[in-house]
Amino acid sequence: MDTWMRFMSSDGGIVFGRVEGGYLHEYASLDHPVPTGAVLSTRALTPLAPCAPGKIIALWNNYHALAAKLDKPVPTHPLFLLKPAGSVIGSGEPIRRPLSYAGKIVYEGELGIVIGRRCRDASVEEASAAIFGYTLVNDVTAADLLNENPHFAQWARAKGFDTFCCIGPSIVSGFDWRQGRLVTLLDGVERQNYPLDDMVFSPAEQVSLLSQDLTLEPGDVIACGTSVGVGSIKDGATVSITIDGIGTLSNTLTAVQAATQTAATIAAV
Amino acid sequence: MDTWMRFMSSDGGIVFGRVEGGYLHEYASLDHPVPTGAVLSTRALTPLAPCAPGKIIALWNNYHALAAKLDKPVPTHPLFLLKPAGSVIGSGEPIRRPLSYAGKIVYEGELGIVIGRRCRDASVEEASAAIFGYTLVNDVTAADLLNENPHFAQWARAKGFDTFCCIGPSIVSGFDWRQGRLVTLLDGVERQNYPLDDMVFSPAEQVSLLSQDLTLEPGDVIACGTSVGVGSIKDGATVSITIDGIGTLSNTLTAVQAATQTAATIAAV
Repeated sequence: MDTWMRFMSSDGGIVFGRVEGGYLHEYASLDHPVPTGAVLSTRALTPLAPCAPGKIIALWNNYHALAAKLDKPVPTHPLFLLKPAGSVIGSGEPIRRPLSYAGKIVYEGELGIVIGRRCRDASVEEASAAIFGYTLVNDVTAADLLNENPHFAQWARAKGFDTFCCIGPSIVSGFDWRQGRLVTLLDGVERQNYPLDDMVFSPAEQVSLLSQDLTLEPGDVIACGTSVGVGSIKDGATVSITIDGIGTLSNTLTAVQAATQTAATIAAV
Repeated sequence: MDTWMRFMSSDGGIVFGRVEGGYLHEYASLDHPVPTGAVLSTRALTPLAPCAPGKIIALWNNYHALAAKLDKPVPTHPLFLLKPAGSVIGSGEPIRRPLSYAGKIVYEGELGIVIGRRCRDASVEEASAAIFGYTLVNDVTAADLLNENPHFAQWARAKGFDTFCCIGPSIVSGFDWRQGRLVTLLDGVERQNYPLDDMVFSPAEQVSLLSQDLTLEPGDVIACGTSVGVGSIKDGATVSITIDGIGTLSNTLTAVQAATQTAATIAAV
């Protein structure tokens, strides 16, 4: 197993590589993983989300335990929505409550698959070889928006807000997901603790079936869906998601002050 | 009004600029539109989709005539799904039937908004200034998949296949959408002919409201939704969408031979 991370250096540049004993061994890129020869102390670097996906494919209803609890049949093909690239943040970055939304915000701890090679119409074997490694995802949702309109389920809107896709802290290649459990703590209290081998579609099956729908690109992330124990995050609360062998993804929900937000808006527009 | 296009040159490079009298006046980029000084004959260039959006936001139920026909109330906030960047093709490129799907494929002729500046929580005035120009979109859908699963509407899957987002042929800045009509021909027979001023949310309102949900980036495209006259495309049929002042977006649905597809897959994986 190797651990891969992405950082911002003090000059604003982005570096990616293998982390070992407090050092980053830099590699050219995720889809061209050859060492550059540079070795940097991680102490001088700011961690980022471990990849910069062009798209995030988020599965719904991919665990037997959750399907049973929801009393829904398990699907015959992955059911998914897309989260935009702009929704991604890394571990330690704040989840920002949208200015326009005062309702319930929900965490979902999930295994994330990181794609290493372009694939389309891939067999399960080809799909398996196209997986670069595994990470953690908090698939955040503005739950009250989902069914606010009775004629159209607003999956993309409810899950697509800026900062609503927490990914990190690292990507682990060679990780045996079958042995893993995912644990979610909300302000230190355990809320989710489920075995990954309860998945309906295995990671390689997901990649194979999804690659029949749309071309997967290096760096793309598939959030494998969550299981039981989903709940709401109060403003100021911290969600920490752990899979032993991958690490802990930790993010706090913050309500941005309107005054600050207005200044940011003017700068941005 | 200026007309903007994107081309591939004979050496594989991509050029963007203002087109006038058969010549491309090259500009640095859509979000930094300053002339480079280069002037190229468009005859030596291969047209591409006029921008490379990071995301495509596709609206549902944004025309009064269609809402009335569907007997649905008009929404109070734009209802949308996301189409992935990989689904984009330009005018003249084939729409490819997915290997795994033998069902009905549907065209939807739509006005497209192209974003010129990053915007978040933008007022209607700020939103209006953030619009670079307008284009045409064929928002293609594998219609039988939409409600195939009774528990989850598969918007992202049905509309996210490679080649299912036709954009082009150009972007026109300074275009007065209020005066426009959109006409869709299927193999030369008129199927859609609707006025753009029947929209529920105007382009500036869409940009403003959507920017409360997610940050819009330069090059992003908002497909404004379609109106009445949507229908299915048989394999081999050509859909041509025209708005006077913008041009004609024309694409043919092709069923790829399985043998060809297999070879392409092996190369890609």
